Amino acid sequence: MALYVYKFGGTSVGTVERIKAVADKVKKAHEQGDQIVVVVSAMSGETNRLIALAKEMQNQPTGRELDVLVSTGEQVTVALLCMALHDVDCPAWSFTGSQVKILTDSAFTKARIRNIDSDRMREQLDQGRVVVVAGFQGVDEFDNITTLGRGGSDTTAVALAAALKADECLIFTDVDGVYTTDPRIEPKARRLNRITFEEMLEMASLGSKVLQIRSVEFAGKYNVALRVLSSFTEGLGTLITYEDTKVESALISGIAFNRDEAKLTITGVPDKPGVASKILGPIAEANVEVDMIVQNIAEDETTDFTFTVHRNDYLRAKAELEKTCVELGARKVSGDDGIVKVSIVGVGMRSHAGIASTMFKALAKEGINIRMISTSEIKISVVVDEKYLELAVRVLHDAFKLDQETKL
Amino acid sequence: MALYVYKFGGTSVGTVERIKAVADKVKKAHEQGDQIVVVVSAMSGETNRLIALAKEMQNQPTGRELDVLVSTGEQVTVALLCMALHDVDCPAWSFTGSQVKILTDSAFTKARIRNIDSDRMREQLDQGRVVVVAGFQGVDEFDNITTLGRGGSDTTAVALAAALKADECLIFTDVDGVYTTDPRIEPKARRLNRITFEEMLEMASLGSKVLQIRSVEFAGKYNVALRVLSSFTEGLGTLITYEDTKVESALISGIAFNRDEAKLTITGVPDKPGVASKILGPIAEANVEVDMIVQNIAEDETTDFTFTVHRNDYLRAKAELEKTCVELGARKVSGDDGIVKVSIVGVGMRSHAGIASTMFKALAKEGINIRMISTSEIKISVVVDEKYLELAVRVLHDAFKLDQETKL
Repeated sequence: MALYVYKFGGTSVGTVERIKAVADKVKKAHEQGDQIVVVVSAMSGETNRLIALAKEMQNQPTGRELDVLVSTGEQVTVALLCMALHDVDCPAWSFTGSQVKILTDSAFTKARIRNIDSDRMREQLDQGRVVVVAGFQGVDEFDNITTLGRGGSDTTAVALAAALKADECLIFTDVDGVYTTDPRIEPKARRLNRITFEEMLEMASLGSKVLQIRSVEFAGKYNVALRVLSSFTEGLGTLITYEDTKVESALISGIAFNRDEAKLTITGVPDKPGVASKILGPIAEANVEVDMIVQNIAEDETTDFTFTVHRNDYLRAKAELEKTCVELGARKVSGDDGIVKVSIVGVGMRSHAGIASTMFKALAKEGINIRMISTSEIKISVVVDEKYLELAVRVLHDAFKLDQETKL
Repeated sequence: MALYVYKFGGTSVGTVERIKAVADKVKKAHEQGDQIVVVVSAMSGETNRLIALAKEMQNQPTGRELDVLVSTGEQVTVALLCMALHDVDCPAWSFTGSQVKILTDSAFTKARIRNIDSDRMREQLDQGRVVVVAGFQGVDEFDNITTLGRGGSDTTAVALAAALKADECLIFTDVDGVYTTDPRIEPKARRLNRITFEEMLEMASLGSKVLQIRSVEFAGKYNVALRVLSSFTEGLGTLITYEDTKVESALISGIAFNRDEAKLTITGVPDKPGVASKILGPIAEANVEVDMIVQNIAEDETTDFTFTVHRNDYLRAKAELEKTCVELGARKVSGDDGIVKVSIVGVGMRSHAGIASTMFKALAKEGINIRMISTSEIKISVVVDEKYLELAVRVLHDAFKLDQETKL
């Protein structure tokens, strides 16, 4: 008898009919003889409706009360799903985060899970019931209701799977898995059967937002086998697992990209210790997040310093940088808000040389000029003009033969 | 420093604007230096919306899950009211029934309160905060969410007032108090400054539905001073208290009435022990509630038996009665579904003779034929043809000078 944690997001439980479809799916799994824990989000639109109400009450709603408010969204869904399960004669028992209990810290609206008591869930599972748990919410040590922040239902599912030592945690969503890249850009993009946690983290943070990053980190940390699959179609989806060193991995798993990037450069900065923090300090204080950072030493002992920011923050960051330019006696500030980032991701590059040169050669062949390069252990990112985004993705997809299934 | 429990029903918190108006009212009271506990219902329409959703899921929604579902209605309101209070710089702290905790039995959808822990509320009150509690809900000994049944927020308010030994429990509603009778029928109807619990119970069950009967019973049992007043206009409303024997009471406090009554008579029933249960048993089994019952012994040693039922149940009850008539060998069944009940209510009749005769004389003077009479210690009810309802109410209102204020 296996134990599975199923998670259904807001779209999957967005209407009465969809909740009934979820009930049918869960019932089928339960009838296989497996133990099933279901984690659900609020019906799509509900959380936004509640937050809008809150903002009519108070400009900056109090965190504690906001959590009391929005946690009702998932509470509604667990009750409705249990009713739908009862309606098809499938025994089921609902839990709020507090009832489980999912103990968190007291950081309202963005709490972190500290501990999960699995006794009450076990008790219901042992009585043959499906256990339905409200995602996204918990309770602190003072019995205050907390929420894990938006999208936190994935984290709840993974945390429950870890606490219950589940065989697998299945995240049902509106996509049928993780793809080698966005199929809207490269029609030959292929669903991956497997991807490692680390690759998934790089893919997710780079724009292929299938899962909440925190839930993937959590799954990696507690070694929970995670599967992403569609709640609307059949199929096995993508399994996200630890890297299995006994298996020959694909060199590259996917091509990620970020639109809406902008880059800023300050040149001729006198090269003294602490220059980087003098440049980036004011940017951080202006609440601008910096992504890639590249620094070169020029021949005249001055430094050229380049970094990327979200395009929305471009003008604000540039204004700060121009002030800094005067203060430091640097030469000038230049920038470009028409660039994008394209990245190849794969654990295979750890053990294979020449991947970067394959990447650069492929781009060069199409005349795509690389404006910036940044590398990590399992990722190489390049910044290119935005007009090249689609071409770069397709060229790289081809160059690494991502349309061909690798045996795993 | 006094402690007050305020209760606002669904209409009073039905919109963002109304919640803000409640916040202003509460803030003013709090600024007087008093300790304030506020009990709120779900925003009007919300409970019905949730129940409709439940019925789409399951024909007869599971009680436990229904309570998980509908309890979210009040949870939303406590959070929103706290935000509105914070917005006007009034410190406030919300509680769900579970957080208080309001311990109930496990009778889902109609639970009864067993115990209230006042420590957590005290802690917040002592820190100078307004305490905002979700009405209508509690938690059983197994940590299941329960609800007290519809209208149960009044009961929550009274129970909290009892537990906290509050100076007064103020029920804010859409009427400004309890009236001597329905002002739509007798324009001279007057708001009562005071009424006793017992009178209130008789008035409420007879159709002047201002408060949940259970909450009045509760208030009487625990000697909680209860005040009914309007949330939309100023005014002191009506205070519901124990009978104060030192004070000269009005003879009659009010005229209540029930439309939609019907009466059924079975005549010539052989008078044997157990006849009443043989007649009423099948009626009860058909789920028909019987109100007034009158039995006369005729000269031929047979019995005439008359009772009233709700007009909607008339035909069903009549069919049962006709079967019983054959079984018992009674003479015949007759009935009338065009009657109403008019009652005078007042603790004064305990110590004053002649009240009934004043009533009957006043009705007779207008040619109103009395079809049935029933009396209790503080109430006399008569059944009359429905065409006389308004006339009878006005005649009695005049006869007992209810338009004139009695000094209390």
